[in-house]
Amino acid sequence: MATEPLAPGVWGVVATPFTESTQDVDVASLAKLVGHYRRIGVAGLTVLGVFGEAARLSTAEKRAVLEVVVDSVDLPIVVGASSTSTAPAIEEVELATDVVGDQLAGAMVQVNTPDPDLLANQLDAVHAATGAGLVVQDYPLVTGVSISPVNLAAAVEQVESAVAIKAEAPPTPPAIATLTARTGVPVFGGLGGVGLLDELAAGSAGAMTGFSFPEGLQACVNAWWRGGYQAALEAYLRYLPLVNFEAQARIGLAIRKEALRRRGLISDSGVRTPAPGMPETLDKQLDRHLAAVESMEN
Amino acid sequence: MATEPLAPGVWGVVATPFTESTQDVDVASLAKLVGHYRRIGVAGLTVLGVFGEAARLSTAEKRAVLEVVVDSVDLPIVVGASSTSTAPAIEEVELATDVVGDQLAGAMVQVNTPDPDLLANQLDAVHAATGAGLVVQDYPLVTGVSISPVNLAAAVEQVESAVAIKAEAPPTPPAIATLTARTGVPVFGGLGGVGLLDELAAGSAGAMTGFSFPEGLQACVNAWWRGGYQAALEAYLRYLPLVNFEAQARIGLAIRKEALRRRGLISDSGVRTPAPGMPETLDKQLDRHLAAVESMEN
Amino acid sequence: MATEPLAPGVWGVVATPFTESTQDVDVASLAKLVGHYRRIGVAGLTVLGVFGEAARLSTAEKRAVLEVVVDSVDLPIVVGASSTSTAPAIEEVELATDVVGDQLAGAMVQVNTPDPDLLANQLDAVHAATGAGLVVQDYPLVTGVSISPVNLAAAVEQVESAVAIKAEAPPTPPAIATLTARTGVPVFGGLGGVGLLDELAAGSAGAMTGFSFPEGLQACVNAWWRGGYQAALEAYLRYLPLVNFEAQARIGLAIRKEALRRRGLISDSGVRTPAPGMPETLDKQLDRHLAAVESMEN
Amino acid sequence: MATEPLAPGVWGVVATPFTESTQDVDVASLAKLVGHYRRIGVAGLTVLGVFGEAARLSTAEKRAVLEVVVDSVDLPIVVGASSTSTAPAIEEVELATDVVGDQLAGAMVQVNTPDPDLLANQLDAVHAATGAGLVVQDYPLVTGVSISPVNLAAAVEQVESAVAIKAEAPPTPPAIATLTARTGVPVFGGLGGVGLLDELAAGSAGAMTGFSFPEGLQACVNAWWRGGYQAALEAYLRYLPLVNFEAQARIGLAIRKEALRRRGLISDSGVRTPAPGMPETLDKQLDRHLAAVESMEN
Repeated sequence: MATEPLAPGVWGVVATPFTESTQDVDVASLAKLVGHYRRIGVAGLTVLGVFGEAARLSTAEKRAVLEVVVDSVDLPIVVGASSTSTAPAIEEVELATDVVGDQLAGAMVQVNTPDPDLLANQLDAVHAATGAGLVVQDYPLVTGVSISPVNLAAAVEQVESAVAIKAEAPPTPPAIATLTARTGVPVFGGLGGVGLLDELAAGSAGAMTGFSFPEGLQACVNAWWRGGYQAALEAYLRYLPLVNFEAQARIGLAIRKEALRRRGLISDSGVRTPAPGMPETLDKQLDRHLAAVESMEN
Repeated sequence: MATEPLAPGVWGVVATPFTESTQDVDVASLAKLVGHYRRIGVAGLTVLGVFGEAARLSTAEKRAVLEVVVDSVDLPIVVGASSTSTAPAIEEVELATDVVGDQLAGAMVQVNTPDPDLLANQLDAVHAATGAGLVVQDYPLVTGVSISPVNLAAAVEQVESAVAIKAEAPPTPPAIATLTARTGVPVFGGLGGVGLLDELAAGSAGAMTGFSFPEGLQACVNAWWRGGYQAALEAYLRYLPLVNFEAQARIGLAIRKEALRRRGLISDSGVRTPAPGMPETLDKQLDRHLAAVESMEN
Repeated sequence: MATEPLAPGVWGVVATPFTESTQDVDVASLAKLVGHYRRIGVAGLTVLGVFGEAARLSTAEKRAVLEVVVDSVDLPIVVGASSTSTAPAIEEVELATDVVGDQLAGAMVQVNTPDPDLLANQLDAVHAATGAGLVVQDYPLVTGVSISPVNLAAAVEQVESAVAIKAEAPPTPPAIATLTARTGVPVFGGLGGVGLLDELAAGSAGAMTGFSFPEGLQACVNAWWRGGYQAALEAYLRYLPLVNFEAQARIGLAIRKEALRRRGLISDSGVRTPAPGMPETLDKQLDRHLAAVESMEN
Repeated sequence: MATEPLAPGVWGVVATPFTESTQDVDVASLAKLVGHYRRIGVAGLTVLGVFGEAARLSTAEKRAVLEVVVDSVDLPIVVGASSTSTAPAIEEVELATDVVGDQLAGAMVQVNTPDPDLLANQLDAVHAATGAGLVVQDYPLVTGVSISPVNLAAAVEQVESAVAIKAEAPPTPPAIATLTARTGVPVFGGLGGVGLLDELAAGSAGAMTGFSFPEGLQACVNAWWRGGYQAALEAYLRYLPLVNFEAQARIGLAIRKEALRRRGLISDSGVRTPAPGMPETLDKQLDRHLAAVESMEN
């Protein structure tokens, strides 16, 4: 296991597809989905994140998901840990190191306190127990914990194990500007790509997020590297309406899985309860957005 | 005063500009700003809303703002009431009816309870005391009150005074679909226009929101009426990156006022404390977005 | 107007009674209620606080409440300002200085930011505009703003106008210990007296809170001064079950008004919507608690 | 495994003691602590609840805790499941059935949705997979989920597996009145016993909560059964100041563990990070409260 900074670019945050009949992990769909990510050339994959519904999987299911991904692709892999406490987070990361082995690019752990020293202790404890490089995820909507960008930077600067920060505390562009100015680790945006252009302008290393057309995230990041703002804007425009559509509160996960299904990348779009499914009233609009993206792609 | 449904289209939510030196209401800038709205042909204006920083103005300042707007333009005007309680909301609406008179298209009152019957009582009480038509604003981020779309519709259906609903409880597209299916009043989207395309598809009557280029909201709505999804998409694309940039949590108001300043529509971009100003780290990106919108406009 | 520290002891937080038929301010009940406070010898009164339902009163009603209180008793008076913004808070304090005049012991303003310097600016602005001494209320449940005790102390230390702190951010005992160690102003507990013993032990100057038997708060504080913990404990025990009963979330205000009604201090226990009334299921238990307090008093 | 209603009375919610040096589970202290509970004759024990810091333990540690408890006492045991999702909750309950076997009186699962049908589905799924009787815990402060008492009752009435409800959504007394009127299962109060008198009056079957003197909870409940309100009041008074002291937000767990330590029931009072320890400023007051309880006991 390396503790090297994550490669810049787009890290695909992998959904966990379920079978329609039993809501079990759909191994075949998962393999197909990550195969698509490999084909389009993402920098790596993030598995068992929020978009992967990790908090709704049993340990055996988490293990199965990791095994399928590792068996399917040879990409670098970040594995999410859902817990905000040390011992269960270590347990999650140990599962990741056990199954993913040398393919593990980092374990993603949660900011669990606004205090930079306590957070550094948490990161040190997880790393000491597992040896894994750490992606520090700042996602207050999920954890209920808010840390200032200055304090987050102070925590990350204290530890050697941090390989990336995933910045998902809005407003992310000024947070990313602060984090990149104060730390040496790459900072990735998330939140479905709603602020991708502005996060790149603020110094982000790319995107690590769920979006049904990860090709759009790649087009934007690659264009940014090649031609800066104007090129990235032109590359991303066609995707932005769908990005915003998918970023809807609470139902975004269901919309994205349905979009993946309509693209033929997974077989069923079910999400585990009590998460709501995609409202029927959005059915036609999703078709319109998908058709628009596809027509503009040609 | 009429209690007729609001006209469809774009209602400009008016910022309250302050003078740089004293942070007093900048009467000249306000007149210039609403003059711009009139020139571009908005359906009406919304004054003293959240984007107008109404909750940070004294009663005398609110009166002054209304007087300037009424003296400057002959557009229909919606006036916001910030309070979630009956007596102070009535007091705010009375100020509106007093100053705005026949130009008053509606008083915007807040959803203050999840209970449809109690909400109907609130609307009835405000209308009975003031005679004003009511725009029912559902904005849980500001009020802390969450109501289901079904219950909001049930409340609105009980009263005769509702002239519109302003739907700002994400996810807004399915909420608007429910509200338009169950009530006979026009429903407007807000939230800076982030979901405008999807809100129109869900049946919204238009947009009532702050955005530094209201021309973009108009272009989208008009294109929707003329040509549906595809036309609206094409009209709105050029504005979407700036829409998302301005919609950043907590700092969106400051960004929009700075954008208005750079467009020459107001003299200073100050917001009243304790609201934060626009972070310096966003300075260049705002210029890029404004230049991109303007270059694409030609 | 003085800007001297508030006198230690019990400050009665005055409910605003309404008439049963019209829900108007019940002037006679209000006069009777504050007369009771004067008779039992409280240090002063706090009017137009949260327990006074100030946020649900019109300006005319607030003025009427203040006039009745001033006409009825010659006690020092603290007047609450509900707004978290500068200009409307100043407007509220100006009403207080206008009506209450020399009887005004302080205007109670809200902590509106976690930033100590911004908070100091807010306090300075309100004082500069009104001349009033300020009671700084830290009540995150109502304002949504959380400040650390260290930062609250830092703000208060920067200003000369603070005459007291009202500490209502749980856990209050350690917060009060910090505030009294770092500032020279008296700190009062609130929250219905649930932590009064521990707040006194932490250095509080007394209680400023609504409770249907303010005699109990007085007995506790006086006993503390006279005999310390053991005396205060013995004095307060008989009231604690009722204190806890009245401190119930959301319905506490309704319970307290009903208790005041049963004591004969006000004529009707109605609270303004959308606040809920006392659930019927609590009816007998309130009688039991009141009977227990009264029997132990003899 | 039985799915019979829990026995009424006091269920001791067991803290998880850690060793001072390594913060590992302190097996000897845990055995001593549950031995004390057995000696005083509680109705049963609740292990791996919030007060047991279950969410901060690894699976191996949870198993160890359960093994120690089962080896130490033959009391009926409720085992908490922290997860709000079905699959991981089943995994937690399976651990409980595996280790606790016939001693398992119930598995405590969380309310995870405001929708009664979805909640009934969740309960059915956990029961179908494990066979365990279920204690339905309604604790919005921890889960972030709020359900109305009416909807909670509707969910419980749909399932046969519910053996109790633990009502910890304030205000609990009216909620318990609703739940006991509408369901046939016993309802227990928690929240440190702050509302125990009022919960008993509302029909609760007893208390299931952490408090450093569970003898006080027992005295209250037993007195209630024997002599009603007046007897329970007299029995509980001496404990109420300590009850309120221990119920302080965020630091209550640390205070209780320190009180248990001073009573000689555990060796160290450490709580796992990022939970805060007991503030030093409370040190003497805890001693006073403990001395007062002990002096009054004789």
